Amino acid sequence: MTLQEIGQKAKEVSHVLGILGTEEKNQGLRAVADALEAGQEAILAANEKDMEEGRNNGMSQGLLDRLKLTPARIKGMADGLRKVADLDDPVGEVLSMKKRPNGLMIGQKRVPLGVIGMIYEARPNVTADAFGLCFKSGNAVILKGGSDAICSNKAIVEAIHNGLRESGLPEDAVLLITDTSRAVTQELMKLNQYVDVLIPRGGAGLIRAVVENSTIPVIETGTGNCHIYVDETADLSMAAEILFNAKTQRIGVCNACESLVVHEKIADKFLPLVRERLQEKQVEIRGDERACAAEASFVKATEEDWGREYLDYILSCRVVDSLDEAIAHINRYSTGHSEAIITRDYESAQRFLNEIDSAAVYVNASTRFTDGEEFGFGAEIGISTQKLHARGPMGLKELTTTKYIIYGNGQVRP
Amino acid sequence: MTLQEIGQKAKEVSHVLGILGTEEKNQGLRAVADALEAGQEAILAANEKDMEEGRNNGMSQGLLDRLKLTPARIKGMADGLRKVADLDDPVGEVLSMKKRPNGLMIGQKRVPLGVIGMIYEARPNVTADAFGLCFKSGNAVILKGGSDAICSNKAIVEAIHNGLRESGLPEDAVLLITDTSRAVTQELMKLNQYVDVLIPRGGAGLIRAVVENSTIPVIETGTGNCHIYVDETADLSMAAEILFNAKTQRIGVCNACESLVVHEKIADKFLPLVRERLQEKQVEIRGDERACAAEASFVKATEEDWGREYLDYILSCRVVDSLDEAIAHINRYSTGHSEAIITRDYESAQRFLNEIDSAAVYVNASTRFTDGEEFGFGAEIGISTQKLHARGPMGLKELTTTKYIIYGNGQVRP
Repeated sequence: MTLQEIGQKAKEVSHVLGILGTEEKNQGLRAVADALEAGQEAILAANEKDMEEGRNNGMSQGLLDRLKLTPARIKGMADGLRKVADLDDPVGEVLSMKKRPNGLMIGQKRVPLGVIGMIYEARPNVTADAFGLCFKSGNAVILKGGSDAICSNKAIVEAIHNGLRESGLPEDAVLLITDTSRAVTQELMKLNQYVDVLIPRGGAGLIRAVVENSTIPVIETGTGNCHIYVDETADLSMAAEILFNAKTQRIGVCNACESLVVHEKIADKFLPLVRERLQEKQVEIRGDERACAAEASFVKATEEDWGREYLDYILSCRVVDSLDEAIAHINRYSTGHSEAIITRDYESAQRFLNEIDSAAVYVNASTRFTDGEEFGFGAEIGISTQKLHARGPMGLKELTTTKYIIYGNGQVRP
Repeated sequence: MTLQEIGQKAKEVSHVLGILGTEEKNQGLRAVADALEAGQEAILAANEKDMEEGRNNGMSQGLLDRLKLTPARIKGMADGLRKVADLDDPVGEVLSMKKRPNGLMIGQKRVPLGVIGMIYEARPNVTADAFGLCFKSGNAVILKGGSDAICSNKAIVEAIHNGLRESGLPEDAVLLITDTSRAVTQELMKLNQYVDVLIPRGGAGLIRAVVENSTIPVIETGTGNCHIYVDETADLSMAAEILFNAKTQRIGVCNACESLVVHEKIADKFLPLVRERLQEKQVEIRGDERACAAEASFVKATEEDWGREYLDYILSCRVVDSLDEAIAHINRYSTGHSEAIITRDYESAQRFLNEIDSAAVYVNASTRFTDGEEFGFGAEIGISTQKLHARGPMGLKELTTTKYIIYGNGQVRP
């Protein structure tokens, strides 16, 4: 199939998916979950091919770990789909309905986006997860996974098609692009005629490439240079615990803390505490001049450190004179993902919530909570760091749009 | 000022504008309205320069009409700003706030987008209108108007700056790009570091160019190939009145009807009525074979006609066998703007509302109502025909985004 044909099929099937009943969709999701488990052997065999290819090509241990499927991971994918089946169907909700003076009833109704394109890297579980969320929200999905996972993705999509077929649902609900060339990715990014939105999932390089080359609207997900600001009135032991959690509970994720900002009035007291608490995980701390003066074990930071998303046991640390300076520093260097203030002061808390320009802003809690699951969405397709359409964790609702429905009885415009 | 400097200033001032109080903003809008009226002489003189240049360059009468300012049009701009001052401030509304099992309170709050870039053509009134809506919604705006209107735009922006200065508000709330070269427009479309969204307003060519070249998220506004479908059960005189209104009440606008779709069972009876009703405005009707058979005065349509936005006294007309065929035809050829069904049948109405994939779908009313004013938004910045972020008329709310605000008391992620 050419990409044009894939696009056309997706557009056609999207009109069918958009009006499926909730029960049909849920039943389909459960059948696909069963089909994934039933197809376990074929999926694992295909995955082993990708793993072997990866080992031969000298793929890093980290990437091999992401690529690897196990019976437990396949069960995880299947259970994920069953969970999505249990979530509320966002489609069809009427958000408002108002009567105008001329008698027109104007309502706004939640409807699917249409066709979603996902461009992602080596994690084959994204294949099933993306299908589940897109299908439940009434969308067709075109998948373009990494070439490293192509055998695994083909096997997973085959299992999904089996489940859909058994349920009498259209297999084209999920279409996998099997040509893994860059040229096809470029072409996909210009398929405006058929694709309503592109969601890239992966490293900063992939996301930048999609933002720069796509003519289709993109939802940017991902990078997080998250800050914790410890105010002069903070409970310092709470601050140290939150910092420890946000920095070290899981280092490779976008909501991990990368930078600590500390009020100068408490720097001398708090920074030795930080050293002590983060010692357990051997976190390297890169401080500005005042931070290094307060705590001799810190390494000297360079300008470049303030903008880094380390995804590692490294933390940058800056001492500021005031809340104003903290807010200005964070708004300048953050990627707009998640930031927290630790404070006991009412006004500082309110000002931080108002003036920090990020997707999620916390008072006295770890940045690690920015996550669809933790926010109560049940599942997420990514965390948007842009401001258009969706900001923060994206669940089923964020995969929908609205349309206006208008009931008249002959009205014309005077 | 270089474009980089303009971007930087806009970003900086956006942090100030985002936390202005409603009263400060309203007072500023009213002061700017007064300043526009006070500056009338200078604005008219500048506009006359543009008009002269336009006449010398052989600008069409239609474009000259759009370019021309009069005391009444300046008063219109000023009154528009006063009206925006009277609208509710969308910023700061908390859309939801939920308590999670771990005690975190997670809320979603409406906040400004930040910096909005407007790229538009020869209508200088957009300069004041765009400023008003962006300012009220707490955003900074960078304006790139057409070179044909540059003197008028400079004079209008000067008046806006006077009004802001008198109110002690930052003049950088509106920044006009005075370099009218194409290179600057190209550079603006890549200014991701500073600009959060681009809104092009103008013809299809301008919008396509922005969609194709911008790396900044774009909200597509505009083109409308709007359909009216007359079902077999329709009240035919109501249908003729609605068609007359939608086609001829104002021909150059995006919500005007461009295509009529008719059920074959009523074609013989209805199409002569259509000819009669549209005769008054000498509308040319281009029909498919069956339409021409039913009404000899129709011209034969070509395949190309089905996708045309005429913006003229021309209408395409197709006869279909069923509602299914009507829906398929419309979903294939429409631009996703506004479509209407005229029917007395409950199920046909519901199916049309559900299955037509457009921003606004009507039962028994004219498509001409797709308009911020008519929808009760008070004012609009354009009509989005894309699905991301905003769909349909965009008022103040559509110029905002949300952020998550989270209140904790020491929560860490287990």
